[in-house]
Amino acid sequence: MATIKDIANQLGLSVTTVSKGLSGASDVNEETRQKILDTALELGYVARKDQSASNAPKICIFVENIKYEHIEQFGYEIIVGFRLAAAERKWKIDILPLSMNERIDYIYDEFMRKNGYSGGFLLGFFLHSDFHVQLQKTVIPTVTLDNVINNRNVACVGVDNLQGIMRAVELLASLGHSTIALMNGESNSRVSQERYNGFKLGMSKCNLPVRKELIAFGNYTNLCAEPYVKGFVEAGATAIVCASDVIAHGVLTELNKLDLRVPQDISVVGFDDMPLAKYTNPPLTTIRQDRLSVGKSACVAMEQIMDGIAVSRLLISPELIIRESTGPVR
Amino acid sequence: MATIKDIANQLGLSVTTVSKGLSGASDVNEETRQKILDTALELGYVARKDQSASNAPKICIFVENIKYEHIEQFGYEIIVGFRLAAAERKWKIDILPLSMNERIDYIYDEFMRKNGYSGGFLLGFFLHSDFHVQLQKTVIPTVTLDNVINNRNVACVGVDNLQGIMRAVELLASLGHSTIALMNGESNSRVSQERYNGFKLGMSKCNLPVRKELIAFGNYTNLCAEPYVKGFVEAGATAIVCASDVIAHGVLTELNKLDLRVPQDISVVGFDDMPLAKYTNPPLTTIRQDRLSVGKSACVAMEQIMDGIAVSRLLISPELIIRESTGPVR
Repeated sequence: MATIKDIANQLGLSVTTVSKGLSGASDVNEETRQKILDTALELGYVARKDQSASNAPKICIFVENIKYEHIEQFGYEIIVGFRLAAAERKWKIDILPLSMNERIDYIYDEFMRKNGYSGGFLLGFFLHSDFHVQLQKTVIPTVTLDNVINNRNVACVGVDNLQGIMRAVELLASLGHSTIALMNGESNSRVSQERYNGFKLGMSKCNLPVRKELIAFGNYTNLCAEPYVKGFVEAGATAIVCASDVIAHGVLTELNKLDLRVPQDISVVGFDDMPLAKYTNPPLTTIRQDRLSVGKSACVAMEQIMDGIAVSRLLISPELIIRESTGPVR
Repeated sequence: MATIKDIANQLGLSVTTVSKGLSGASDVNEETRQKILDTALELGYVARKDQSASNAPKICIFVENIKYEHIEQFGYEIIVGFRLAAAERKWKIDILPLSMNERIDYIYDEFMRKNGYSGGFLLGFFLHSDFHVQLQKTVIPTVTLDNVINNRNVACVGVDNLQGIMRAVELLASLGHSTIALMNGESNSRVSQERYNGFKLGMSKCNLPVRKELIAFGNYTNLCAEPYVKGFVEAGATAIVCASDVIAHGVLTELNKLDLRVPQDISVVGFDDMPLAKYTNPPLTTIRQDRLSVGKSACVAMEQIMDGIAVSRLLISPELIIRESTGPVR
């Protein structure tokens, strides 16, 4: 196995130049970079990581208003996934719960450096606003859940929202539905926008029209559907795609008030496959977010950033879970 | 370090159930899964990979009408990146060039199995249509460049197109431009759609209107801009964002015909940072696709799929490279 020094010796270049060429730095000219890369392959160069226990990176997981003690809680499997993947890498993990309502009176980078953290994983539906600004400039390898930050040191992990909603639409189309409504979350959230784009893409793929009166933005609570469901039904919707299982639970309640049967009169699809999805009446067809994989991939994304690969997003394939809330169009 | 068997013994469960719980399979109930996961963390379970040389996975890279011999060619750094990351994992790599015009008279999965390949990396701007259908059902861990396939065994890698175009728009807005045009690639390509979404998102973030007459879809050649550039100028555009450096090169030619100076009269931004971007007149401000990182991340995504983590997309952060084709609004 060759080292950077072997490549430098063979080409008569400095170790710094070789190292830059191997990492694709734009200030090494193409001809030199090609020589370096060709020689690396030829000599069998392998990047070596210092994996001795004393050098094991210490990572801080910040948990913002998400519960994670039990498997029914959204954060549990994400954190377990991260910790299992971290154990393979001999990383040490600390968990620091935050409250959104508290002001954070420290600077992220300073806090991380003082405490010897090599990386941070920010697990929260919304980022603490103090952090949001600071993360745009952080030099610490950082991973967020579902929050895209414009910084090459920050990656975002989550489920592939666009593909997920597309699959829900495709399922409904295959059951004969053509008048499909979307009950979405907050309009200013990136996740909701992606779910909306997935809805439009799925409808277009199935040659179905997207009708304005069948699209609503609410929020991720079970009350948000209340003002919209009656309108969807009056506009002829035979199926409602929801941006979360919690929203879908609210939709089921509203449909029950209107004396409509699910799925005989109207079909409903949720998103997340939270444990509650099994216990609604009827149990929800939903798009599963594999939270264990999301947690593991957060660790993988962090390792990539530490290795100089500027991962921007790492998305997990959604999985369609068919239960009893969907059926053929009436 | 504990094994799956240790966890099974401690809990009195079968190895199969523990293994399912660790991989997040949906047919293990939550209570059992929590016990398994908690015990895994408690005992310090680490997934072990068989890394002996005789078991080293063999990977096939299919290259479709992309050149890769020299660093100026689009495929070179992607393949080197993949091979460097594969060397760290002791994977063996074969490279198989394909021609789009040839009919492929074998079945992908059969070909892979017969030849002992554990994974495939399909490197092409467009997927061979024979493959496109087959990949929707493949069980072989597979990675594509920029082609999203609806299958949990297939991941897609590439640069974050949306973030890239957003950064181009933000740069132009910071230089005082408010009437910005987009010269895009094919309207039916996912990449072009993402670049279009990035344009809309960037304009909206900078409080600038998106005007229909300033958006055109062409294709990724330097001739595609010819019918549109004059119209952009007449509509008042002071800057043109292009979906590739090759398109931007065509835009520069058209602006030259119209006797407009770049950047004094109008600014131009490319995409890719291909070697040509340095040699246009003037040299192009562009969004860099770090192709070495894209290649490395393709290998990482494949490893994840092999480990049971259904990566859907792995995107690399774009990097803004400022050269001489952009300047303050006139």
